[in-house]
Amino acid sequence: MFTRRDFLRFSSASAVPAFSDSGDFSRQWLTADPALEPVFFMGDGPMYSPTEFIAKLGQINQTKPIERDFYGKGGCVDELASQFATITGKEAAIYLASGTLANQLAISVLSGENTKVFVQETSHVYRDEADAAQSVFGKRLISLAPNKAYFTLSDLQQSIEELNQGEVFRSGIGVVSIENPVRRNDGQFVPIDEIKKIAAFCREKGYKLHLDGARIYLAAAYSGTSVKEYASYFDTVYISLYKYLGAAGGAILCGPKEIIDKMEHLAKIHGGVAFMSWTNAAMALHHLAGLEERLKRSVLQGKQLAGQLNELPEIKITPVAGGTNISNAQLSPAIDPKKLSETLWQTHQIALPVAKADGSFKLMVNDSLLNRTNDQLVTAFKNAIRFAKR
Amino acid sequence: MFTRRDFLRFSSASAVPAFSDSGDFSRQWLTADPALEPVFFMGDGPMYSPTEFIAKLGQINQTKPIERDFYGKGGCVDELASQFATITGKEAAIYLASGTLANQLAISVLSGENTKVFVQETSHVYRDEADAAQSVFGKRLISLAPNKAYFTLSDLQQSIEELNQGEVFRSGIGVVSIENPVRRNDGQFVPIDEIKKIAAFCREKGYKLHLDGARIYLAAAYSGTSVKEYASYFDTVYISLYKYLGAAGGAILCGPKEIIDKMEHLAKIHGGVAFMSWTNAAMALHHLAGLEERLKRSVLQGKQLAGQLNELPEIKITPVAGGTNISNAQLSPAIDPKKLSETLWQTHQIALPVAKADGSFKLMVNDSLLNRTNDQLVTAFKNAIRFAKR
Amino acid sequence: MFTRRDFLRFSSASAVPAFSDSGDFSRQWLTADPALEPVFFMGDGPMYSPTEFIAKLGQINQTKPIERDFYGKGGCVDELASQFATITGKEAAIYLASGTLANQLAISVLSGENTKVFVQETSHVYRDEADAAQSVFGKRLISLAPNKAYFTLSDLQQSIEELNQGEVFRSGIGVVSIENPVRRNDGQFVPIDEIKKIAAFCREKGYKLHLDGARIYLAAAYSGTSVKEYASYFDTVYISLYKYLGAAGGAILCGPKEIIDKMEHLAKIHGGVAFMSWTNAAMALHHLAGLEERLKRSVLQGKQLAGQLNELPEIKITPVAGGTNISNAQLSPAIDPKKLSETLWQTHQIALPVAKADGSFKLMVNDSLLNRTNDQLVTAFKNAIRFAKR
Amino acid sequence: MFTRRDFLRFSSASAVPAFSDSGDFSRQWLTADPALEPVFFMGDGPMYSPTEFIAKLGQINQTKPIERDFYGKGGCVDELASQFATITGKEAAIYLASGTLANQLAISVLSGENTKVFVQETSHVYRDEADAAQSVFGKRLISLAPNKAYFTLSDLQQSIEELNQGEVFRSGIGVVSIENPVRRNDGQFVPIDEIKKIAAFCREKGYKLHLDGARIYLAAAYSGTSVKEYASYFDTVYISLYKYLGAAGGAILCGPKEIIDKMEHLAKIHGGVAFMSWTNAAMALHHLAGLEERLKRSVLQGKQLAGQLNELPEIKITPVAGGTNISNAQLSPAIDPKKLSETLWQTHQIALPVAKADGSFKLMVNDSLLNRTNDQLVTAFKNAIRFAKR
Repeated sequence: MFTRRDFLRFSSASAVPAFSDSGDFSRQWLTADPALEPVFFMGDGPMYSPTEFIAKLGQINQTKPIERDFYGKGGCVDELASQFATITGKEAAIYLASGTLANQLAISVLSGENTKVFVQETSHVYRDEADAAQSVFGKRLISLAPNKAYFTLSDLQQSIEELNQGEVFRSGIGVVSIENPVRRNDGQFVPIDEIKKIAAFCREKGYKLHLDGARIYLAAAYSGTSVKEYASYFDTVYISLYKYLGAAGGAILCGPKEIIDKMEHLAKIHGGVAFMSWTNAAMALHHLAGLEERLKRSVLQGKQLAGQLNELPEIKITPVAGGTNISNAQLSPAIDPKKLSETLWQTHQIALPVAKADGSFKLMVNDSLLNRTNDQLVTAFKNAIRFAKR
Repeated sequence: MFTRRDFLRFSSASAVPAFSDSGDFSRQWLTADPALEPVFFMGDGPMYSPTEFIAKLGQINQTKPIERDFYGKGGCVDELASQFATITGKEAAIYLASGTLANQLAISVLSGENTKVFVQETSHVYRDEADAAQSVFGKRLISLAPNKAYFTLSDLQQSIEELNQGEVFRSGIGVVSIENPVRRNDGQFVPIDEIKKIAAFCREKGYKLHLDGARIYLAAAYSGTSVKEYASYFDTVYISLYKYLGAAGGAILCGPKEIIDKMEHLAKIHGGVAFMSWTNAAMALHHLAGLEERLKRSVLQGKQLAGQLNELPEIKITPVAGGTNISNAQLSPAIDPKKLSETLWQTHQIALPVAKADGSFKLMVNDSLLNRTNDQLVTAFKNAIRFAKR
Repeated sequence: MFTRRDFLRFSSASAVPAFSDSGDFSRQWLTADPALEPVFFMGDGPMYSPTEFIAKLGQINQTKPIERDFYGKGGCVDELASQFATITGKEAAIYLASGTLANQLAISVLSGENTKVFVQETSHVYRDEADAAQSVFGKRLISLAPNKAYFTLSDLQQSIEELNQGEVFRSGIGVVSIENPVRRNDGQFVPIDEIKKIAAFCREKGYKLHLDGARIYLAAAYSGTSVKEYASYFDTVYISLYKYLGAAGGAILCGPKEIIDKMEHLAKIHGGVAFMSWTNAAMALHHLAGLEERLKRSVLQGKQLAGQLNELPEIKITPVAGGTNISNAQLSPAIDPKKLSETLWQTHQIALPVAKADGSFKLMVNDSLLNRTNDQLVTAFKNAIRFAKR
Repeated sequence: MFTRRDFLRFSSASAVPAFSDSGDFSRQWLTADPALEPVFFMGDGPMYSPTEFIAKLGQINQTKPIERDFYGKGGCVDELASQFATITGKEAAIYLASGTLANQLAISVLSGENTKVFVQETSHVYRDEADAAQSVFGKRLISLAPNKAYFTLSDLQQSIEELNQGEVFRSGIGVVSIENPVRRNDGQFVPIDEIKKIAAFCREKGYKLHLDGARIYLAAAYSGTSVKEYASYFDTVYISLYKYLGAAGGAILCGPKEIIDKMEHLAKIHGGVAFMSWTNAAMALHHLAGLEERLKRSVLQGKQLAGQLNELPEIKITPVAGGTNISNAQLSPAIDPKKLSETLWQTHQIALPVAKADGSFKLMVNDSLLNRTNDQLVTAFKNAIRFAKR
């Protein structure tokens, strides 16, 4: 799979001499109209180069002077946290340095003295946080639903039952953590009905619920369930600032005041407090305004675009079942994938991942889609396909 | 004491309606020539407002395009680490999110299974890291030399002897950590001869040495001992990126490859890895160039300036003994402190802390001093003093 | 399953008014010849009541005065550790307060900074140590071979491969821990060939190996592989002192000197060092002498006895495949299980678990079998069966 | 100082060929009437050799059959815990494997998320638990009153004030722990008025209080304050089972039910639960009966004895100010210390530490004093002094 990480790795390389198999979407190769805003069929939102990042920050600051924070407090950082508290309907919110910190602190504090934490086997907490839960925070992650996007209430209950039967000494259950949507499963989201059932069960049993909502806005846009409703089923919610909010890093954690109030100290002792974090907060605040609406329009336009492109014989786009912004795409063997991506980028400023040898690739939709009409995009594809015929 | 933290707290406040007792050095109150670069008699180096920060970043990027990093690796972040490895003469260096993380990880890894860590009672590790050493990293800090800037070899040996006598069960000594210069002691530095003696003793005994060199460039500038020589007596060295390097946060840790190689993983599990850190690295790289030389010139000019100002009857500047860039300053009762600071800032763009009711304040020198000649500064002081007479 | 724990729970109850369904093997109900030594078809070795324990201790002390230890050092405790170092062929051995402490400390120290530890899903470390690995020692247990007695090298390799593929951030593999035999799997042992293959693989990869050999003497007696050979494939070996060595608690951990040397301090900081432990050490030393030979004879006699009993129509004994001292036993419906056990105990001092309603029970063999000849035992069974006919 | 540890080290040595400078009080050297019960001027209570321990256990079991426990629950272990809950007036009590475990778990659980714990600089927690607080339980011990037996409320308040002033980031205060009496200060006890003041202050501030009452019965006997009253000022109380209760190890922790209920699980994960602990519990139960009264009589008899012995010109006994059962004793230069101790032991079965070259030694009183009348003892001393004249 051609991932966003790979993309960034390549597109940030400074001295790519030519358009490689992996794509080179740096602007120096553009022959297109420089006034055109690019469209990225990769990533969940804007991915700024340093030049773009600085320019965007300058523009934000010019519109309304950015107020700096002081060790993560005050100014636009507080403003961002406050907005997210409102959005998620939680009492409090705090800026944290990373998603890993947000997930781990939330799970750790919610668990208290209990050691057992249930997670999807495919989740970021289980697979991408380097055993932090066990080695730093003393928690035992119990993974459910291997390779699947989500576990059902029944999966959860069965695992609990097995633990109750199979263990002699009690070490209680603290948290059920759900990532939604799941990046490792091509962005599939968790059905709201399953979340409701799990939440009702956990409330009854006294287990706490954490939402790894790094990309929760994508789930909301594709499922029609609002961010606020999603959040309502969970004690704590983490949202990333750099998936679609343009920041260079950072996370927001929302939850009950008594939980969030412990985070400043915990972030400090884990070395996670920077002198100033206003760059991230200002970028996120800017992109947050109107995001939900932009994503909704992107979803609509993306679906229509897929329909239009599927009328071309050279490309076939199939949405991931139960998915969000990622589709499986397939080029006809008559098309040279590298040439197609090259032409789309250089001539039309449309970034398309270079397909694999078998013509398959993952196509991601984000709000850069709104930079063009579908007609413009289809025309560009037609044109590029012509050039890319073998 | 009027600290840099206080200063920033106030100067970042958005709605200060007038020049308060604590000073308000935001530019909106300036009547001075806007082309004048300000001089700050507070802080260890540049303290950029968001507008200035963005402008400076843009200027850096224009001179030479900034290369972004990817989760703290690559681009200008690697370049910065590499330069610091060279500067400190160490095998390896790594960018870390905060000084607390750098200090704690260095001490923890160097200590291995040993639990005892010796620190100055006045040190940041002991007083300003919220018991992270004990609560997260399982180390016992043993503080020496209460209220003093440094402990002697003899202090250290006596404490070790007492522990050997006074404890039945062994739990070994891991690290001796030295902060230099010591912020809590008005920037006093540790005599190089004491460092040499302590280092020789520790090497012999197998204890590891960590330098909290957040502001080591100040020690170097005032003591004449180079950063490289300081570093040579220690296993690991941490240097801050936001004291005089203009970054919004971040730290560099230098040391043996086998120690530094463990840091990426440890930073990850403590939630300390951001998606991108190039803003801090680019700022630090820019300000690092020529820093040692600029600070040397600032020291010289600062000493001369103190001499010239001391000729005025209204002000008396006394360097802290064994100190670096902080002096004790005293205004004559005839001067209204608030009026003096106000005039200096608004008319001359010279930021001077507002003295306490008794006329005393701390005067700090940094490389913003180089923005004017001493003659310009003395003239400005004379002028402002005239206006500030009661 | 009628477990040893249940047995002890019941037999230690002080005020059992009559022979209950669960059996009451306290001696007060005996009408048998008091000179007869009892035979227990439950437990892995002697299970002394306080009276018996004190008497046995007195007898040991009379034969040769017991030398006391001092905080787990010296006297018979050192002697026991020394004998086990020789038996296992390891450089060093230490007395520890519990099997949990022995397993956890061994795994923790062998792992060093690595977090991943592979264990059988059915193992004591995974199921009966209350998440100590995660919550106290910062390790991530990865369980293999659910519900089975052992994992194969191929299971292990596949899991490692999945981790290598599925995780972005490295957090190394420390230890592969194998329990042998596996109590939760009716005492099945791990085939020596699989151990050899796993050991060779781990040595090559640099992974450490720990043997939870709480009952390793049973594996040795039934497999024919010596304790020393088993130990030779592992870095560290834990052996329980109260399964068949008559102690009231305690464990021995054997391994390389550099590993074992760290244990005294670690046991201390976990609160695991008692003022004196000579009672356990003296009991274990006494029962250790000749144990291997006694168990070999018990195995032989047990197999012959099963053959002889299987000739009776009322009872059917089927050894657990790949098992050690536990067999599945089945009574004919014509037999009243409670009456059978009652008669065997009260008349013949033979402790047999009371079968479940369907007539099934687990029959365990230990060296109390040697207290009678098989002819005596068969005669007793025949007699009791006659009385227990419905 | 000749400590109890030293004594035990020597007296447990098996092959001491002759009466050494350090004393050899094993019974093999006795020429005294074997029916005489020995008197020990060392130790806080009975110190049994294995032979004596087994005999005592047998005698206890004969009087009333000992009921065994099962993994620290049930039988005489529960009975002991229950008695101590009553004695201390606490809701609950639990048997734990060691005093270190009892102290550390109490402090850790009472502290919750707070990291700061105040202790006497001379306390066992600070000096004899191998940095367990920091390295295993994540707590920061702040030691007060160096070299003194106790800190005052004012010492405590001053330290808290300094922390409040001197630290920027909050990491709360959890527990104030007081050892009473203090072994490292020759058994000096903490004045009840100071305890009352500290307790009132802590209650008001919400800080929890832990009593390391390993030897609290000594404090009670010498101060006249009952164990129950002492306990009433603290949240949790630990009492040792082997200082004067004859056990080979073990501790009791008393406190609120909600705190004590967490201990079983915590003891388990720290590897501190043995299969059976009835030997220690039975010994402690036996010695607990009448202990308070025996110690009161010992105090009285000890004081009278000191008066009587001080009438002899060859010996001078000076009670430690504010002390309990330890006095400073001084022999006249005319006496050969070794000969004196040797004669007292061999002829009179009175164990007296061998004085140092300057004639000084520590004399400890315990309830073995009740084995003789003071007249018998004085006669024995007179006789032995005659033989020990140089």
